[in-house]
Amino acid sequence: PGQTTSNTKHEVKSMQTKRAGRQTVQLSHPPSVVSFANIGGRMEGQGPLSDYFDELSPDTFFGKKTWEQGESAMQERVLRRALEKGGLTAGELDYVLAGDLLNQCIGTSFGLRSFHIPFYGLYGACSTMAESLCLAGMFVDTKLASRCLAVTSSHFCSAERQFRFPLEYGGQRTPTAQWTVTGSGACIVAGKDRPPYLRAATVGTVEDLGITDINNMGAAMAPAAAKTLCQFFNDTGAKPEDFDLILTGDLGFVGSRLFERLMQAQGCPIAGRHNDCGLMIYDRLRQDVHAGGSGCGCAASVLCSFILPQIACQRLKNVLFMATGALMSPTSVQQGESIPGIAHLLHLSAFAGKEEEVR
Amino acid sequence: PGQTTSNTKHEVKSMQTKRAGRQTVQLSHPPSVVSFANIGGRMEGQGPLSDYFDELSPDTFFGKKTWEQGESAMQERVLRRALEKGGLTAGELDYVLAGDLLNQCIGTSFGLRSFHIPFYGLYGACSTMAESLCLAGMFVDTKLASRCLAVTSSHFCSAERQFRFPLEYGGQRTPTAQWTVTGSGACIVAGKDRPPYLRAATVGTVEDLGITDINNMGAAMAPAAAKTLCQFFNDTGAKPEDFDLILTGDLGFVGSRLFERLMQAQGCPIAGRHNDCGLMIYDRLRQDVHAGGSGCGCAASVLCSFILPQIACQRLKNVLFMATGALMSPTSVQQGESIPGIAHLLHLSAFAGKEEEVR
Repeated sequence: PGQTTSNTKHEVKSMQTKRAGRQTVQLSHPPSVVSFANIGGRMEGQGPLSDYFDELSPDTFFGKKTWEQGESAMQERVLRRALEKGGLTAGELDYVLAGDLLNQCIGTSFGLRSFHIPFYGLYGACSTMAESLCLAGMFVDTKLASRCLAVTSSHFCSAERQFRFPLEYGGQRTPTAQWTVTGSGACIVAGKDRPPYLRAATVGTVEDLGITDINNMGAAMAPAAAKTLCQFFNDTGAKPEDFDLILTGDLGFVGSRLFERLMQAQGCPIAGRHNDCGLMIYDRLRQDVHAGGSGCGCAASVLCSFILPQIACQRLKNVLFMATGALMSPTSVQQGESIPGIAHLLHLSAFAGKEEEVR
Repeated sequence: PGQTTSNTKHEVKSMQTKRAGRQTVQLSHPPSVVSFANIGGRMEGQGPLSDYFDELSPDTFFGKKTWEQGESAMQERVLRRALEKGGLTAGELDYVLAGDLLNQCIGTSFGLRSFHIPFYGLYGACSTMAESLCLAGMFVDTKLASRCLAVTSSHFCSAERQFRFPLEYGGQRTPTAQWTVTGSGACIVAGKDRPPYLRAATVGTVEDLGITDINNMGAAMAPAAAKTLCQFFNDTGAKPEDFDLILTGDLGFVGSRLFERLMQAQGCPIAGRHNDCGLMIYDRLRQDVHAGGSGCGCAASVLCSFILPQIACQRLKNVLFMATGALMSPTSVQQGESIPGIAHLLHLSAFAGKEEEVR
């Protein structure tokens, strides 16, 4: 009991946590991602990032009887692995911050059932990994928690039958459609002095520019991504060239092009520095994924496989990680509603502060 | 920009926010619920709390074309009303913390679409009002935010057709079934020195004792409620007799009896002090609601209509508000899974601290 960090220097610095602007919180004593883990499925194992995964499962059921149970099993496994890699037990986590795409977030609630960790359930659609990391960073920086775990998942088969068609139907996909990643990623955030650091967080707003095509979610999410990124730059005074990589979650090919054009129109070109997890996880020339990957597990597994190790070893120095979510449901689409989007942003860095950066 | 509270005394005190135990956070400078609002439907208007509602709508569509859109309209209206009552604008809120029961939480995302407030989407099933208030209290106390709005909703018609049967089918309900409240409640939490105060928060864990009857969610949630309440008492050293009221969210008749028996078995009897929002909002003798009310809107609307005004005027001095959630989905039930529960707890008080209490 009484899990409070006791570093006095940390306590004094923590007071300086200030909101840089209306939406951005600069973390005064940047917490670290002290451990992370990931898991992927068959398609992810055939993609360009396959070597970076902790585990790739050819079994779409992950040893369970249904895909939904398989998705829970993924969350359970990455959570266990993140604990193992960090030399921690479940009892040492103050909070788990998690969610997924399934109705009522059952991937998460059943995946976490055996751990008995205080649980904040989140729903941010495919933005959930960034949402959970924003919260984890804020909790640790303000000493509300010593250690938080952020985890999320998605599964192609459970998502496809819930959001689109039964797989047996063999529905045709449009060129703008994206392929839901079967994967999960987990990060443990704590007040340790080692990279990757969480230096700032910008929590997004719901933005809806009227896109109604459920097979073009990249277009629906791009305006929210542009809104959040511009807000971060406004709040902090930072510029695109301060970052090695501006990484969106799952805008895919169509959404990424729109996002870059929106940023260009705002006088803030990012084209050379931008990449998208949905474009990185699959090889669109070899794999039949149309506009790229999507799903909570897309941003989560790319972050926890390919990105975080590069920040840890300072190959990447400053990264903006911005997972994007489309906040519709099949019901809202059937009722003729447009698709609201949201994007949350994290500044991940190899350095705890500007003065420590080697340029 | 730069929305930080500047009271120096507050800043110094804020450093003292400590975790009393593994799950309970004592808020060092208890934030206040500075404004709150609620709305209900036809059945709620026929119940014993009808006089306490800000607005009761005989139109189940709340002026929209579908029940789902109606649910979004409820959230939009209570949010506007809470702002009005508090003399605030949407731009003065740092975060909105919100969720609902609908697949992908569309009640919330569409309800909030027009406000452009930084948004943390939550999913805690019927526990969401307590989850959002826990987060709001922690954010304001640690100065991550100056003002947060917590809001949630449920709607009988949208819930019934999503979780159970189309209304047209006229499905029969079992005696243990509960009636989903059509209602919404919103609270604005800020660092003002006036009651009701948020003094402590205990974030719950996922608990599953193997209940599989989807028509008996009170039984599925009761163990989680007992677990969280015992944890709060253990963490803080408080006792049931320190509180005028221990208020659960929507255990209903069956779940409430089980909850009281579980607490009795733990050597911590609460029977005389316990009530349940699901039992208060309807008259079970006159209204055909079986085991009582349920839904995110149950705890939210009872809290924001009947409870908070009594704390504000010190008629109730110390209240434990504990909303409970059943974390299943129709899919998990169809796959034979049991029903995990969760409960989050808030200590609401007419006083900011022990020394200020008039006994």
